[in-house]
Amino acid sequence: MSENQRHMAKKSDTEWYIPRGFSAAGLHCGIKASALDLALVVSAAPVSAAGVYTQNLVRAACIDWNRDQTPSDRIRAVVVNSGNANACTGERGFRDTLAMASAVAQGLSTADARVLPEQVLVLSTGVIGVQLPMEKVLSGIPRAIQQVTEARTGFADAANAIRTTDHHAKTASRRWEAGGQEYRIFGMCKGAGMIGPNMATMLAIVLSDWHMTSAEADMCLRHAADQSFNRISVEGHTSTNDCALLLAPRIPAAANIDHRSRDRDLYTFQQTLDEVFLELALQIPTDGEGATHLIEIRVAGTSSDDEADRIARTIALSNLVKTAVAGADPNWGRIVSAAGYAGVPFNPRDVGLSINGLSVFAHGEPASFDARVVSRSIADAHRTLIELEVGAGTGRAVHWTSDLTAAYVKLNAEYTT
Amino acid sequence: MSENQRHMAKKSDTEWYIPRGFSAAGLHCGIKASALDLALVVSAAPVSAAGVYTQNLVRAACIDWNRDQTPSDRIRAVVVNSGNANACTGERGFRDTLAMASAVAQGLSTADARVLPEQVLVLSTGVIGVQLPMEKVLSGIPRAIQQVTEARTGFADAANAIRTTDHHAKTASRRWEAGGQEYRIFGMCKGAGMIGPNMATMLAIVLSDWHMTSAEADMCLRHAADQSFNRISVEGHTSTNDCALLLAPRIPAAANIDHRSRDRDLYTFQQTLDEVFLELALQIPTDGEGATHLIEIRVAGTSSDDEADRIARTIALSNLVKTAVAGADPNWGRIVSAAGYAGVPFNPRDVGLSINGLSVFAHGEPASFDARVVSRSIADAHRTLIELEVGAGTGRAVHWTSDLTAAYVKLNAEYTT
Repeated sequence: MSENQRHMAKKSDTEWYIPRGFSAAGLHCGIKASALDLALVVSAAPVSAAGVYTQNLVRAACIDWNRDQTPSDRIRAVVVNSGNANACTGERGFRDTLAMASAVAQGLSTADARVLPEQVLVLSTGVIGVQLPMEKVLSGIPRAIQQVTEARTGFADAANAIRTTDHHAKTASRRWEAGGQEYRIFGMCKGAGMIGPNMATMLAIVLSDWHMTSAEADMCLRHAADQSFNRISVEGHTSTNDCALLLAPRIPAAANIDHRSRDRDLYTFQQTLDEVFLELALQIPTDGEGATHLIEIRVAGTSSDDEADRIARTIALSNLVKTAVAGADPNWGRIVSAAGYAGVPFNPRDVGLSINGLSVFAHGEPASFDARVVSRSIADAHRTLIELEVGAGTGRAVHWTSDLTAAYVKLNAEYTT
Repeated sequence: MSENQRHMAKKSDTEWYIPRGFSAAGLHCGIKASALDLALVVSAAPVSAAGVYTQNLVRAACIDWNRDQTPSDRIRAVVVNSGNANACTGERGFRDTLAMASAVAQGLSTADARVLPEQVLVLSTGVIGVQLPMEKVLSGIPRAIQQVTEARTGFADAANAIRTTDHHAKTASRRWEAGGQEYRIFGMCKGAGMIGPNMATMLAIVLSDWHMTSAEADMCLRHAADQSFNRISVEGHTSTNDCALLLAPRIPAAANIDHRSRDRDLYTFQQTLDEVFLELALQIPTDGEGATHLIEIRVAGTSSDDEADRIARTIALSNLVKTAVAGADPNWGRIVSAAGYAGVPFNPRDVGLSINGLSVFAHGEPASFDARVVSRSIADAHRTLIELEVGAGTGRAVHWTSDLTAAYVKLNAEYTT
């Protein structure tokens, strides 16, 4: 039944399923020269909200702010600026984050209902170590509050306003039915590497109109992020600002909950959310700085999933593997040797490797294969599949990364100032 | 006294101090199209020998062979081929390594003294996953045995024959006096990245004529390697073939050892050996594939040296830091944020950073500095010094790496076959 429901979750490249109760805007406030640089998402009512954040010890002020506020069951808005990460900005950085939350809270407050700064989450992305031009940000916020709309245009503007070096806005959307009612998920994200001059980061904001508690939001978000944003890399440089947020309406106080059907519905929601997260996450290495290939690395045969994950990540971080894919070079020695220094025990004689389904190494010895055929299979597709077996264990993992091209180096060697 | 002796250790760019008792040759046996590809170092008498080897689980056959033979007090020769790593080559790879050792042993055996394969160390470097052309190697070995000479030319040919993509032969040499006698150290190494088409690796062979036990050789080698080859990286890809060897004559059975003066002499030897190792090691990232800068990363203020080392290595592995240096971009946010994900606790407010002696970040806030001056200091020198303080602890470490340029990517994206 839930499987049926799951398959009813529809994806469309052209349709966006905007969850009811949310509105959004994106505009130019002046941090960047001309592109959109301020986004606002508003919920008509307080909602459940959860966040997952960068593990970096050096964190932007807004990350500390959001960590203090989530999980929450009373969030009203998320405000985002691009073009400036507000990271490594000391005490003033914290004051500026608070000022952004306060300005949104004040603008949303009415005579009947006061909104507190604690009900506003704040995201910043862009260059590190430069103070925010607050007069521009604070003049943009009231305009954004005026402009928010439930129409698709508002969400499109918001998705554009969170971009830094992304080539295009990144969104994903699904809808499904439960109990005769249609529900929706809409997500936007940004990220293409952590690069100068705008030291970009990964941000994601995902909205739904399926009701849940803040604890459920937290649990579902962590599961979805673990399957997606925690399995991608561009160059493996953990940013100061990484953040993924999930917002969804609270369960009405009067709701009469049937726990059996709720478990089933929660399962459907989780599956659909996982799909949205994965679709968002894969857009990041696909659009990685200078990237020409999305590399999918599948590792199996370890004694645990965690061990497979460590091997997959080590391969994904190897510049030699990433440059080989860029050059359509079936240089499998680089892949096998990267696995060898992942710190996971295996017997090299049990190792088998295939590239795009073509076996290149088996039982610890070179397989006989036509290198030109493997090379062509890499050159002719935007996605390269690397499958490594290291034994007979049941552990498995997948990781996605982008290839490393001269264009990446050029983009990142450009002088910031 | 030992300090005085130490300062007598002389370095010369033109003079090579070849330890007595060793001879060497380098020649073309046909693995490569035309360059020298076979080196042989022979000791007239059995010597003490020690080795340090790659930590990679996927190891070349020769590495396993050498690990089994060292430490040893009866080594007679080291044979090296370049152009082929003999790694990931299965059972045949092991047989080929043994055949190389056997051929050298047979060639060195006389009617009076038989040399065993176990007295010969074997090194291979080059492309992974291709079987060695053994008829070429085995026809080259007798010629190398005939050609070995104590003259400088033999060592110069050997240093050239171990190169893969190195731009030049890498050597270092010292001499010093102890007890009225002159002693010498001569070392050669190769390495410029782990790169295709010849997947290069780091190899070093260091010879001395100062007498020692194999246990002393092992101890001195580990100390010297830890201060040098264990602190450099090009792109952080641990190879299948990394190896550093130390060979020095045994202590004569009749020797009457004064333990006090021996401790002092051992100290002098260690200091001199450390200098030779560091001079060899720094030539590798300086000659790193496509490199335009040697980056020296000094970290201080952690609670232990090990913590400082982890931060220094994390910064050294960041493509964003390496591309910034290539572009003379004083993008300090990349350095501070890399430190933040090294897994070492510190308070960002205690962090200070300088580039080439110019302060760019202090007490967790951007310092006021002229970015053009810092940029010019990077652009105008081949060496970039990054100094990071993360607190008041006494831990400190240094690591060296090369910058990351578009030329590195081009070299490594070229198709192998």
